[in-house]
Amino acid sequence: MAATDVRVKADDLKRFTKAVFEKAGFTPEGAENQADVLVWANLRGVDSHGVQRIAWYLELVDKGHMKPRPNIQVQKETPAVLLIDADYAPGPVVTVMAMRKVIEKARKVGIGWAVIRNTLHQGAMGYYSLMAANEGMAGISIVCNPPNMAPHGARASGVHNSPIAICVPGQKHRPLMLDMATSVAARGKLDVAEDKGIPIPLGWALDKDGKPTTDPKQAAVLLPAGGGKGSGLAMMFECLTSLFVANPLLTPVFQGKPGAQIHRQNSVVAAVDIATFTDLGEYKASADAIVDGIKALPAAEGFTEVLVPGELEDRVHAERATNGIPLPTGTWQKLEAASKRFGVPLPVKV
Amino acid sequence: MAATDVRVKADDLKRFTKAVFEKAGFTPEGAENQADVLVWANLRGVDSHGVQRIAWYLELVDKGHMKPRPNIQVQKETPAVLLIDADYAPGPVVTVMAMRKVIEKARKVGIGWAVIRNTLHQGAMGYYSLMAANEGMAGISIVCNPPNMAPHGARASGVHNSPIAICVPGQKHRPLMLDMATSVAARGKLDVAEDKGIPIPLGWALDKDGKPTTDPKQAAVLLPAGGGKGSGLAMMFECLTSLFVANPLLTPVFQGKPGAQIHRQNSVVAAVDIATFTDLGEYKASADAIVDGIKALPAAEGFTEVLVPGELEDRVHAERATNGIPLPTGTWQKLEAASKRFGVPLPVKV
Repeated sequence: MAATDVRVKADDLKRFTKAVFEKAGFTPEGAENQADVLVWANLRGVDSHGVQRIAWYLELVDKGHMKPRPNIQVQKETPAVLLIDADYAPGPVVTVMAMRKVIEKARKVGIGWAVIRNTLHQGAMGYYSLMAANEGMAGISIVCNPPNMAPHGARASGVHNSPIAICVPGQKHRPLMLDMATSVAARGKLDVAEDKGIPIPLGWALDKDGKPTTDPKQAAVLLPAGGGKGSGLAMMFECLTSLFVANPLLTPVFQGKPGAQIHRQNSVVAAVDIATFTDLGEYKASADAIVDGIKALPAAEGFTEVLVPGELEDRVHAERATNGIPLPTGTWQKLEAASKRFGVPLPVKV
Repeated sequence: MAATDVRVKADDLKRFTKAVFEKAGFTPEGAENQADVLVWANLRGVDSHGVQRIAWYLELVDKGHMKPRPNIQVQKETPAVLLIDADYAPGPVVTVMAMRKVIEKARKVGIGWAVIRNTLHQGAMGYYSLMAANEGMAGISIVCNPPNMAPHGARASGVHNSPIAICVPGQKHRPLMLDMATSVAARGKLDVAEDKGIPIPLGWALDKDGKPTTDPKQAAVLLPAGGGKGSGLAMMFECLTSLFVANPLLTPVFQGKPGAQIHRQNSVVAAVDIATFTDLGEYKASADAIVDGIKALPAAEGFTEVLVPGELEDRVHAERATNGIPLPTGTWQKLEAASKRFGVPLPVKV
């Protein structure tokens, strides 16, 4: 953490965040979901998806793009799948609900697969996949937004850097979790760099003219991870989410349709029940063995140890749960603004 | 193609390939599946997954690792999922069957999800995902093998460069298809380089001591695409395939178990029915619009046009369907050996 960072306790930060969203019109349960998803990301060190987003969420509510009390409807349903119209719900509100429903379905028929139309930012997608892992299932979550990333070979945005999060349970180890954007770096990481006033590495982004930049303020176009692999996944994720709910998010921007750039998301959350296929205890032991095996491999030059996906975040979680969550100046200022606006006391600095 | 390449007609190559596998003990239908998958890959220019594999498949049969007439069994089944024990079936034989079954399930409940235990090399996974797209569905196929790729931060193999293939239907355009390995380059591309006697780019692979190499013969460890993103996906794909069928393929190698390195695969094939969620015609039009929109973007420096995933392969397909499939010397020699062994006439050079 930087010398200017403050630290606050996770529970206190969650209390603050929940209260702010309640004041902004969320139901108590919705505000709880929203706060839990944000603070969970901060606890894991994924600050790009943490409370620094509060200001933006409030802006979305103010503009009428996000409905704090949406009319969420299940529009299609079978024993295995469902289509949920989110009515511009805050992401966590509809996505927690959707994941609970697919877990129920997976318990009965082995898999549950939900497609969500027109929600807003869902936060760190790993949160939802972890819900499935905690129920003895594999969780899969993907999401698409309007374009912010160059397809391989292009110098303008054409896809979204759609993330995918996959999580399965371990026994000795915490759940194995991959939560990755399809860009080299997540957009939120650029926001954090901006908050911190530091440059971004070359290769993360292009400016609005399609030229490489290291200034997070100039970054207009993200670059895909692994070239055509990252942007190929992103393109197919639009096909698995937005096209399944007749709500394309990429093409309206290409076609210059009014409002096409307004933030909204379509998403898939799925759960596959392990016990339907095999013994859950054996599965967890096998998952542990993968972690142990990979960690025992010789490290590459420049590395002191081999980390599995999510491991670094787990360590940060342990440290921050004890010592509190560090917040850079830019983020703290956003909390101050929300505190002042709604009369909600700021978290106590520890 | 190289000056020494020969060209043969696709139908003739398929006739030859099918006859060879029948002589090797496959059922006529199984040989047909196997030949169709291989020649389809050659038609698309994915020569790494084409008939150059014949020699290796015959070796697998000779060693008893691949059963030409397996006892394939559905061991678990619900309206949405199934677990299939392949009994060491040739990949295409069990995977075509599995994809047909999940398509049936998807037609009824919106999704079908099959996990396959102990099959052998399945060829280009895009073939199976395309089967779903041709039925108005999204197809998803993933596969895992014993380790051949370094996890990010390691200098030895710890994961397999597990591919994923996702395919959805277009209307004006051919189906949108992403078929990617999680390594920078597929293992088969190294075999092709070896057949052609050309070096591989730096960054594709390490040698057995964990040092970078450009010699395809020395390449022992593949490197992941996008660093921890490629190897993270690969690790989770093992969890979604092998662990769901209680047949881990990574950890037995770490643990030095006898036979752990023997080639076999576990796999998921899934289909999600579009009409269950939305209008299929509208879906296809939206898929077309994505292709059109991405292709209309300004090209990056060093590129003359923006290609969507699968587009290059579609072009090669069109050319090779007309002019025949070029085969490098090394591949032709493998066909000659099979021709001689089984008394099957070679394809006619065109």
